[in-house]
Amino acid sequence: MITKKLLLTKRPQGLPTKDCWKLEEEALPKLNPGQVLIQQHYISLDPAMRGWMNDSRSYIPPVALGEVMRAGSVGQVIEVNGKTPFQEGDYVTGWGGVQTHCITNGEGFYPINPKWADLPHFIGSLGMPGMTAYFGILQVGEIQEGDTVLVSGAAGAVGSVVGQIAKIKGCKVVGIAGGPDKCTYLMKELGFDGAIDYKSENLKSGIKKYCPKGIDVYFDNVGGDILDTALIFLRKKARVVICGAISQYNEQNYQGPKNYLSLLVNRASMRGMVVLDYAAQYREAMQHIAQWMAEGKLKSKVTIYEGIEEFYPTFLRLFNGDKLGKLILKL
Amino acid sequence: MITKKLLLTKRPQGLPTKDCWKLEEEALPKLNPGQVLIQQHYISLDPAMRGWMNDSRSYIPPVALGEVMRAGSVGQVIEVNGKTPFQEGDYVTGWGGVQTHCITNGEGFYPINPKWADLPHFIGSLGMPGMTAYFGILQVGEIQEGDTVLVSGAAGAVGSVVGQIAKIKGCKVVGIAGGPDKCTYLMKELGFDGAIDYKSENLKSGIKKYCPKGIDVYFDNVGGDILDTALIFLRKKARVVICGAISQYNEQNYQGPKNYLSLLVNRASMRGMVVLDYAAQYREAMQHIAQWMAEGKLKSKVTIYEGIEEFYPTFLRLFNGDKLGKLILKL
Repeated sequence: MITKKLLLTKRPQGLPTKDCWKLEEEALPKLNPGQVLIQQHYISLDPAMRGWMNDSRSYIPPVALGEVMRAGSVGQVIEVNGKTPFQEGDYVTGWGGVQTHCITNGEGFYPINPKWADLPHFIGSLGMPGMTAYFGILQVGEIQEGDTVLVSGAAGAVGSVVGQIAKIKGCKVVGIAGGPDKCTYLMKELGFDGAIDYKSENLKSGIKKYCPKGIDVYFDNVGGDILDTALIFLRKKARVVICGAISQYNEQNYQGPKNYLSLLVNRASMRGMVVLDYAAQYREAMQHIAQWMAEGKLKSKVTIYEGIEEFYPTFLRLFNGDKLGKLILKL
Repeated sequence: MITKKLLLTKRPQGLPTKDCWKLEEEALPKLNPGQVLIQQHYISLDPAMRGWMNDSRSYIPPVALGEVMRAGSVGQVIEVNGKTPFQEGDYVTGWGGVQTHCITNGEGFYPINPKWADLPHFIGSLGMPGMTAYFGILQVGEIQEGDTVLVSGAAGAVGSVVGQIAKIKGCKVVGIAGGPDKCTYLMKELGFDGAIDYKSENLKSGIKKYCPKGIDVYFDNVGGDILDTALIFLRKKARVVICGAISQYNEQNYQGPKNYLSLLVNRASMRGMVVLDYAAQYREAMQHIAQWMAEGKLKSKVTIYEGIEEFYPTFLRLFNGDKLGKLILKL
């Protein structure tokens, strides 16, 4: 049986070029005792992948050169050898990487119940992005009923769940997204109270219009000028959740938030988060999100492209914004 | 009786020029019933004064043009008319402004006990800078015994008290200051574990040397490049206290901390503070600090210049660093 795997071959400067990776084919080796073979169905594309390509200190080690590109995945166990955590036929999610098959002892993989939702959602609203949104807005953002919540990257995998959870908890929610389609989606389908198209609208005017009393929680996925503008509108004791900075990941020099002294004036805080810290509570969060999805209170959009050969153009969509909701590669 | 008062006459661009203020003399008016006349002995010079000169939204309104320049002060009540909160002879501290006499109904003034310490300390370690240090490091920085604490502006009125309180609480304390004299003072007189002269030493190397395991709490009084460098060394769950940004106050465009994503990687937080929020607890803090001073555990240095005419050159020392500890004008 032939397997295809995408190896990291070069560290990028700026926006990764296609030659940062190499697609390799090889015959699948036999399983050792204790190993399982996972046929991977869906690969998750996440902004965090860009950071893992850098050779620098972070919350997890970088992907080594010559290694399979790290990625979350959903797949099915199709073969086992001896005593393993899974049985043939089990659906699992974990760090399968960008490859058609994954051989593992099961560490870092979790069984999933396909009755809860369609498989792609297990790397979307029921996977890392959903967990990030859940713990980010509830435990880091500490939202209270009646808060005004502003979220950037609002039509993305994390942002769209952040906004919907905040709505469920009784907050006023305003999203920032790029383009009229995404803004219509936020308002008409997700029920946001406001949506600002940062590509065509003046962001300051938009925030003033939708958040006339200022912002209690700003959930930031993008960094750069949008973070800087949001900081101007913090209310007293506001919380800024630093979840990501997609606008900066390909920059050689990061742009710092020059309005950070708004934290001082408003006794506000800015806190970073890494979803891995909440692993012990994932199950509880998944149950909540699955229930909200079943009740129609939380909608989950996925944008799916097909074929491991399509990895590179699909990956670029993370940065040019050409997708809606969770970006996924189907194998 | 003639009184002298310094009026704000122009809003500065960048570093204030001498003509931003005008010194006026006038005959003291008679007291209305309920008023007291305070003879001002000492005027506090604080970096925050620069912010109050800007016509922009902040935690207190700006000083209006034509108004007496706002400043903390220590003085003595020399006349009262009718029922007032103070009696003749009382020593008081409050927002007396840059003027030789202050007529007030007493609002915002507090009686002080000159037995506790020399008068200048009531606008230093027992005044706003001391309160800022106390609540900033204990309640915002949330120091724990064994923490490594880095403080910038460490030889200043706030920084020197921050570091000493952290030492008293069992932390390892490293200060950043400008020039060998200040660094010697931190090491030899205040007992800091390390002192880095940012003017002559490489800051990164200095932090690496004194904080080999990284920083648990960074107390920032300066902003700019120093804040940026400190962020590199945050440990997991570190706290950054944003108290001030003296390096930025005279800049037209503030420099944002480009390493702010260290907050994400390290699940760290950056929180702003304004000392006025803690007014209800000032008394308790003053008692602690006064006791530490009496026991010789907390040393308090003041740099005093004399004469209201010397306000401008003395004010400039806040920004050129030419002073040690608390900067005070004696009238």
